[in-house]
Amino acid sequence: MRSKVVSSIREAVELAGLKDGMTVSFHHHLRNGDYVLNTVMDQIADMGIKELTVNASSLFACHKPLLGHIKNRVVAKILTNYMAEEVGREISCGIMDRAVEFRTHGGRPSDIASGRTPIDVAFIAAPISDPLGNCSGKYGKSACGSLGYAFADAMYADKVVIITDELASYPLMDWSIEETCVDYVVKVDAIGDPAGIVSGTTRITRDPVGLVMAEQAALVIRHSGLLKEGFSFQTGAGGASLAASKFLKEIMLKENIRGSFGLGGITGYLVDMLHAGCFEKLLDVQCFDLDAVESIRKDPRHQEISAEHYASPGAKSAVVDSLDVVILGAAEIDTDFNVNVHTDSNGYIMGGSGGHSDTAAGAKLAMIIAPIQRARMPIVTDRVTCISTPGRDVDVLVTQAGIAVNPENAELKDRLVDAGLNIVNIHDLKRKAEHLTGTPKKPMMGSREVGKVICRDGSLLDTIYSVR
Amino acid sequence: MRSKVVSSIREAVELAGLKDGMTVSFHHHLRNGDYVLNTVMDQIADMGIKELTVNASSLFACHKPLLGHIKNRVVAKILTNYMAEEVGREISCGIMDRAVEFRTHGGRPSDIASGRTPIDVAFIAAPISDPLGNCSGKYGKSACGSLGYAFADAMYADKVVIITDELASYPLMDWSIEETCVDYVVKVDAIGDPAGIVSGTTRITRDPVGLVMAEQAALVIRHSGLLKEGFSFQTGAGGASLAASKFLKEIMLKENIRGSFGLGGITGYLVDMLHAGCFEKLLDVQCFDLDAVESIRKDPRHQEISAEHYASPGAKSAVVDSLDVVILGAAEIDTDFNVNVHTDSNGYIMGGSGGHSDTAAGAKLAMIIAPIQRARMPIVTDRVTCISTPGRDVDVLVTQAGIAVNPENAELKDRLVDAGLNIVNIHDLKRKAEHLTGTPKKPMMGSREVGKVICRDGSLLDTIYSVR
Repeated sequence: MRSKVVSSIREAVELAGLKDGMTVSFHHHLRNGDYVLNTVMDQIADMGIKELTVNASSLFACHKPLLGHIKNRVVAKILTNYMAEEVGREISCGIMDRAVEFRTHGGRPSDIASGRTPIDVAFIAAPISDPLGNCSGKYGKSACGSLGYAFADAMYADKVVIITDELASYPLMDWSIEETCVDYVVKVDAIGDPAGIVSGTTRITRDPVGLVMAEQAALVIRHSGLLKEGFSFQTGAGGASLAASKFLKEIMLKENIRGSFGLGGITGYLVDMLHAGCFEKLLDVQCFDLDAVESIRKDPRHQEISAEHYASPGAKSAVVDSLDVVILGAAEIDTDFNVNVHTDSNGYIMGGSGGHSDTAAGAKLAMIIAPIQRARMPIVTDRVTCISTPGRDVDVLVTQAGIAVNPENAELKDRLVDAGLNIVNIHDLKRKAEHLTGTPKKPMMGSREVGKVICRDGSLLDTIYSVR
Repeated sequence: MRSKVVSSIREAVELAGLKDGMTVSFHHHLRNGDYVLNTVMDQIADMGIKELTVNASSLFACHKPLLGHIKNRVVAKILTNYMAEEVGREISCGIMDRAVEFRTHGGRPSDIASGRTPIDVAFIAAPISDPLGNCSGKYGKSACGSLGYAFADAMYADKVVIITDELASYPLMDWSIEETCVDYVVKVDAIGDPAGIVSGTTRITRDPVGLVMAEQAALVIRHSGLLKEGFSFQTGAGGASLAASKFLKEIMLKENIRGSFGLGGITGYLVDMLHAGCFEKLLDVQCFDLDAVESIRKDPRHQEISAEHYASPGAKSAVVDSLDVVILGAAEIDTDFNVNVHTDSNGYIMGGSGGHSDTAAGAKLAMIIAPIQRARMPIVTDRVTCISTPGRDVDVLVTQAGIAVNPENAELKDRLVDAGLNIVNIHDLKRKAEHLTGTPKKPMMGSREVGKVICRDGSLLDTIYSVR
């Protein structure tokens, strides 16, 4: 039998010809359980290779060892769509000479496909692979479901290394990535910690403020004019967003509305809505929990999509362009409806766009759910510290203290006023927040550029400065 | 709802910006029932566009109207992998200034992907599509099953037009080609004649000579050393090849051998072998009959593959590289085992490689089944009129008068001799053939180049000259 299986990650790195200054890439489907990025980077460091660019679709707390490789000059530059605070905090202190480039989940594959951000060697964690590299995320002990974010890496990287902890007999069926793209396959004991890869279940909020917001959010959707036959929907895995889905499900069932598709990172709640008949189909770029993994494996109505198909601005069309409603969160939102999901109230990096600005740009109705204050810091503010998603793409803000509609969407405002919802001016929400928290001290930022937020269209949306 | 649906093929051609001298492409999954190539070319001719290159994965008898467009200078050049005699005969008479470029089913997508044969506008017949171009061959009144040959056109053409006779609601699930590649969608009344798209059933030969050869072929496989757990197999849809599959199936069932996969153009016979447990999986680049279409639609063990995944020499690996045995036909075979499937005994173009030389190059055992003579013309000859598949890639010739093994494969010869099969020298077969038919008059070829056979590696394998 022909085989691309090599004996070790080290051998794959050598065969791939990795040299100083090249770019390596990783995907984040194993989330906070991922072993692969750290293992590969440790090996590369051990081999004495330096000054690499790391293009990782997201970086989680588990990737904190990357900081050591930055300090040792193994890593000179980072491209990512999301960076957890455990990594972001030190980046914000200015440990890198070159700013991190933040893209979106759609912008990343677009820039890879166009050649703007070429990849020399892609390392793709795959829960199952055959010896020639036909591989999938749906099966195996480390099953993570969709491998959507890894498709662009596989298709466009110069060399592609599959790292798996389960080798299947050839040909693996129902592949996500196919052998045509793959150079080497490495079998390891474990690609990740199942407990960190997917949560057992995602949880609806029990916080009373969160429940109030969620109910209001569902009512906004109900009265938006979009909740009808063929409705399509995305929501994140945050507690309030999930609670909004629960209220939305009740409305849809009561009013007998059959939607078209649920999109995005998929949770068991969306799977439940599929089973209940709220949606006909789920399109899944990433599974958030075990229910979603089981569903994508078994239910033909639940299908994997690539990040390009999901959201690429460079594609001839992407699914986000056909989306009706998305519910999103915010670390901060300003009176121009600009949203920050990159930095915390002290200015430290603790997130990133992910699909935030992709879906906001595509959806007919982009809704932000956020409390007006958190931990005595106002969420609604004059000007966000960092623009992650421009206000022009945000339609409405739902808080516990009222609903603010972007003046650009007058039709929506009229509909919600007619429905008797508590519509307020966003400036009033800002004042209310500051009344509760006091006028906030804006964080003192340094002069060093530590992050660049790249807009979907490739332009520079904002710059993140070091924290003093 | 967003939509890429335009009112007519003409509008799509205009919007795609088709101009004189450009390249258009078509696939052949609708086989001899295809309406799309003719309809599009008629429209283009009507619009006064000239000097086009047509890159069609195959041309069938139904595409005879293309000859009119050649004569009117709408078409200046043809690239194809197969040309039926109804088209080929006039090409062989020299009606084109430029020679037809013949590639293989694997070489075509490789040359499209590499940019050696760029496509300006791909016209893709799809039995079902949603309004944004997610489309499939598995469903709809004109269902043809796999759309494997169209993937490269969709991925690499500058503009992509989907032509369908069934619009589905968005998003179509289980898509073959995705909206990310598609510019326009045109709804027409019918993309093809179902009777010509797939045959109701493919038929096993009843010809006694064919049955003798088929039985010998199955015995060669049995004793080749390859027929064991994990065995993989491809065969064409010719009567003798199908009969060989039937004999092979009996052997596999009797000896309880469980193969791995069946590959290729898939017929109901391969589906039967899947059901009987002879194979675990079918990988399908093209469905030959209704049983195959039904199976690929319903059975997850039967999966569509792209032509690149099937056979591209430019891919990092393709399935043909993992194939154990392929059974192929021949119009002529010479004493060096070179095979001609491009021209008939009078030198007229009547076929093409399709997957012939791809599978011969990839498979561990490439077998040719052919009678030593047909219609009083010898099939085994000194030198084929046209080399379609080089003798270095052919292991064995099975005829009714004995089995000739390529001397390069001494191990196979030893095995078959040990098994007591009727192993003969290919020169003896040639003499036997000529004894029956008389020494053939080689066709008188003209001096004009009418076809170039492009090898999988991009080199020129042979040149086809005009017929005088």
